[in-house]
Amino acid sequence: MRLLRFEDGGRATLGVRLGSEVVPVSSLAGFPSDPVAILTGGPAMRSKLVAAADACPVRRPLDGLKLLMPIGNPGKVICIGLNYALHAKEGNNPIPDYPAVFLRVQTSLIGPDAPMLRPGCSTKLDYEAELAVVIGARARCLKEADALAHVGAYSLFNDGSVRDYQRKSTQWTMGKNFDATGAFGPELVTPDELPPGAAPLRITARVDGRTVQDSTTGDMIFPVARCIAILSEVMTLEPGDVIATGTPSGVGYARKPDPLFLAPGMTVEVEVEGIGVLRNGVADDPAFAT
Amino acid sequence: MRLLRFEDGGRATLGVRLGSEVVPVSSLAGFPSDPVAILTGGPAMRSKLVAAADACPVRRPLDGLKLLMPIGNPGKVICIGLNYALHAKEGNNPIPDYPAVFLRVQTSLIGPDAPMLRPGCSTKLDYEAELAVVIGARARCLKEADALAHVGAYSLFNDGSVRDYQRKSTQWTMGKNFDATGAFGPELVTPDELPPGAAPLRITARVDGRTVQDSTTGDMIFPVARCIAILSEVMTLEPGDVIATGTPSGVGYARKPDPLFLAPGMTVEVEVEGIGVLRNGVADDPAFAT
Repeated sequence: MRLLRFEDGGRATLGVRLGSEVVPVSSLAGFPSDPVAILTGGPAMRSKLVAAADACPVRRPLDGLKLLMPIGNPGKVICIGLNYALHAKEGNNPIPDYPAVFLRVQTSLIGPDAPMLRPGCSTKLDYEAELAVVIGARARCLKEADALAHVGAYSLFNDGSVRDYQRKSTQWTMGKNFDATGAFGPELVTPDELPPGAAPLRITARVDGRTVQDSTTGDMIFPVARCIAILSEVMTLEPGDVIATGTPSGVGYARKPDPLFLAPGMTVEVEVEGIGVLRNGVADDPAFAT
Repeated sequence: MRLLRFEDGGRATLGVRLGSEVVPVSSLAGFPSDPVAILTGGPAMRSKLVAAADACPVRRPLDGLKLLMPIGNPGKVICIGLNYALHAKEGNNPIPDYPAVFLRVQTSLIGPDAPMLRPGCSTKLDYEAELAVVIGARARCLKEADALAHVGAYSLFNDGSVRDYQRKSTQWTMGKNFDATGAFGPELVTPDELPPGAAPLRITARVDGRTVQDSTTGDMIFPVARCIAILSEVMTLEPGDVIATGTPSGVGYARKPDPLFLAPGMTVEVEVEGIGVLRNGVADDPAFAT
């Protein structure tokens, strides 16, 4: 099942995508309008919702819908750094035996098609294609073997990073949290549509159509189940929490012979095979205009 | 004005403290029940609320109330590391020219009097006494001179840290985000009650009554106004966001000749002159019991 949110008459509306059409969940009786509540309902809710959507005559063409973040109000946004060996190497970082974890705040997030904002204080805005995991069931102190049962959906993330600010101290937080630099979406794809742990799947990033990252989620140092187990030792994962699982090699700052940073007018696409494409233009952040 | 939240018949209730008594805001006509909405109302709302509370005959003795986090659902919780020179030195860190910033998630937070939980996977739970700043008005790209007008209130924070997990990678996130390790409260103290930027004020921590940290907020490397300005260059600060401004020297792991870590049965108190005392016992995290 593929869930997305779109703007309809100024209101955020949840939809089930069926091919090139979208069935608004509000047209179906008895389902919550919150995508997290759908995920929490698990396979039983999913089966009922898909059956109801299949039978529903109300359809909106996907083309032309203004898509929103697939969850309006994500809980925690937990990011795994250096989770692909070649990416660790391109930044001269050792292969970790425990993940480097950082967090993103909601003000840093945007949905599909919304512009990534380049702040006026830096020219070092970079892309990072990532597989996103959305938690569907509460998790604490999980064993790795039990972890995947707590995944509600997979999606895509572009962990936009302002590289000079990322390195102003030992902690990456500032460079990872500029307003409107982290893109999430476009859809929530339930695990039944993908291989276990969403691996191996080809993961790519394109800047203005040129492929700049090209790897497979099978190359993760800490695969999805392991990430969930490790995180859940520390913190309770709750439905609607998002884990951005790290990016493969090919990010802009490390490119040879010349780095590639994002500038206004460019377009970035993140794609994971079977999940979709997350597309965002780049614009100047108007907060710096004065 | 001093705002607190307490449990009343199973419900979180906002109160204004007047000495040893608390006036429930629900007993006063025309005020929001959300403390963030009160802070957003600024000095005008504050004056009206204090006048109404003063005139209200409904009073509850503070003693015996079960206090809760002063904001039920904080927005961002942004923490400044190494903001006191002696604390940077005790950890063998250089004096920074840009703050080390990390984030805490809500699942890591507890209110006053609630137990700090020591996870079963570590014996290295440490205290950190901090001044907390609560944002009262939206802020982006602020000049330092304008920053303090965006403070809604001050409070206290105990940035409980699991030291071995804090150092498992370069990023401190995991050690700073164990469930129920970060204490916040007990009250929101509006800026009119304190010197500008809440400095200089004596800041102390006590473990089982023994003073282990003793400094002044006047020794911050990045004072409150500067923290707000620096953060607001990166991200929009919103009402209800909390900034934990860093801890002075004297934390447990760096004590000589022997480190001092928190163990079940201990009590930690964080105090800032004029703001109050934040007291928490320590208990084992039951999530690790099986």
